[in-house]
Amino acid sequence: MELISEHGCHGGVQRFYRHDAETIGLPMRFSVFLPPQALAAGAPRVPALFYLAGLTCTEETFAIKAGAQRLAAELGLMLVAPDTSPRGAGVPGEADSWDFGVGAGFYLDASEAPWSRHWRMESYIVDELFALATTVLPADRERVGLCGHSMGGHGALVLAQRHPQRFRSVSAFAPIAAPSRCPWGEKAFTGYLGADRARWARHDASALMQAQPAAPFPLGILVDQGLADRFLAEQLHPEAFEAACAAAGQPLTLRRHAGYDHGYYFIETFIDDHLRHHAAQLAA
Amino acid sequence: MELISEHGCHGGVQRFYRHDAETIGLPMRFSVFLPPQALAAGAPRVPALFYLAGLTCTEETFAIKAGAQRLAAELGLMLVAPDTSPRGAGVPGEADSWDFGVGAGFYLDASEAPWSRHWRMESYIVDELFALATTVLPADRERVGLCGHSMGGHGALVLAQRHPQRFRSVSAFAPIAAPSRCPWGEKAFTGYLGADRARWARHDASALMQAQPAAPFPLGILVDQGLADRFLAEQLHPEAFEAACAAAGQPLTLRRHAGYDHGYYFIETFIDDHLRHHAAQLAA
Repeated sequence: MELISEHGCHGGVQRFYRHDAETIGLPMRFSVFLPPQALAAGAPRVPALFYLAGLTCTEETFAIKAGAQRLAAELGLMLVAPDTSPRGAGVPGEADSWDFGVGAGFYLDASEAPWSRHWRMESYIVDELFALATTVLPADRERVGLCGHSMGGHGALVLAQRHPQRFRSVSAFAPIAAPSRCPWGEKAFTGYLGADRARWARHDASALMQAQPAAPFPLGILVDQGLADRFLAEQLHPEAFEAACAAAGQPLTLRRHAGYDHGYYFIETFIDDHLRHHAAQLAA
Repeated sequence: MELISEHGCHGGVQRFYRHDAETIGLPMRFSVFLPPQALAAGAPRVPALFYLAGLTCTEETFAIKAGAQRLAAELGLMLVAPDTSPRGAGVPGEADSWDFGVGAGFYLDASEAPWSRHWRMESYIVDELFALATTVLPADRERVGLCGHSMGGHGALVLAQRHPQRFRSVSAFAPIAAPSRCPWGEKAFTGYLGADRARWARHDASALMQAQPAAPFPLGILVDQGLADRFLAEQLHPEAFEAACAAAGQPLTLRRHAGYDHGYYFIETFIDDHLRHHAAQLAA
């Protein structure tokens, strides 16, 4: 694990790392914010929030744009943000689309060639990055939450349901909440998972929730959605996730905000509520 | 004035504008954050903070990276951030250096060819942008403060001293505080102002302060400087500004912060203190 850079920030440190990721078979980058509570000699492990970014983003996006460090420093919350796909694989066509391939890993393990060799973002995050964060880095493995935006909101709602032993709290900003029925999701799932829609359902937040025998997050899930979001009608479908939560008895706070769009000015406006949501559930 | 984009943000709106700047003779862009207090019908004019960014930055940098909107919304402070130079002038060599020409206007009116035609950032900010902000936009012309970072810290400390009728409060992050005696400043002043060092002194924050007959900002100036800033020893010279303030009887709060570098993780850590500094002085 190579430290690329470190920056003092709100009494803690914002770091960027590069490492040879075994799950991916390529170098990967991620960012970590260590709150002041994690820096003292002999400090106990701290709760952590993993943040999954959206299409075209990188490990830098959240650290630069979301303004999360201020309150995370106060709450003693470590922040971990991976990149959004493998880079440098050299798969033909990997950079032809902004919504598939590079920058668009969709937080799953691809089953289809040529993507299946490197596009293994689920294993990367849930196994490799989780292990790094809770061993080499000072996160407490019993207190890790998961949040994400857009494609990363899909990732958060899906990975938290598929790996409840890893993630104790979950929230999302403008998630792709029913990818099996929107153009972004259909393109990604067809390319990464093939034509079998039964396989898609295992990576679809709403389908997964619909099939839950009981609420997987009884303390509640938080989702924020802007109503001036130009992707809302065609791509996001929060109402599908809302209906699935109702069917499963999963407590959901879905807030719809007039005047807010799909970008980071929206996220920075409500990030504090998400940090408090996770801090409270991880302390419970 | 053309509205490029508008984003809901902390109950206010973050806007980006483009306009044909008469002072510059080219289109210019700037960003504006309007706090919720400025959006209501019949709302009174609000206090405003102009922010001048550093080398290579644009009108987007502050809006994206500094995290100022949260507290500005609470304080009712409008935020205005111009670009850092003319763009598209087509002056030979204008983009050859990252510290001179495009992205490096140094907030002065150049006297030397070929720069003198378009590189008129002082007139642009003090006359044209100030007028727009206080007529078309809802800033109160009696309550405008000035802040900046690095090259923009130089700009803030200089323009506030040269135009005290415009700016009622001033602060800076890691300013180029004595440009006449550092490589960035010597290069810029030689190129834009020529070889006459007497002319340089009129655009050097420390030289200007040294010559003040009385404290120009009796309520005090706030400057933050990181001690892990790799530009500190060679380029910034806050001690020169500190000595000049002492000589002029100008109250100065110069805070030196161990572990903080020259970037926006440093700025976001202390931006709230600057917003409160300006809000308090503009309300006085």
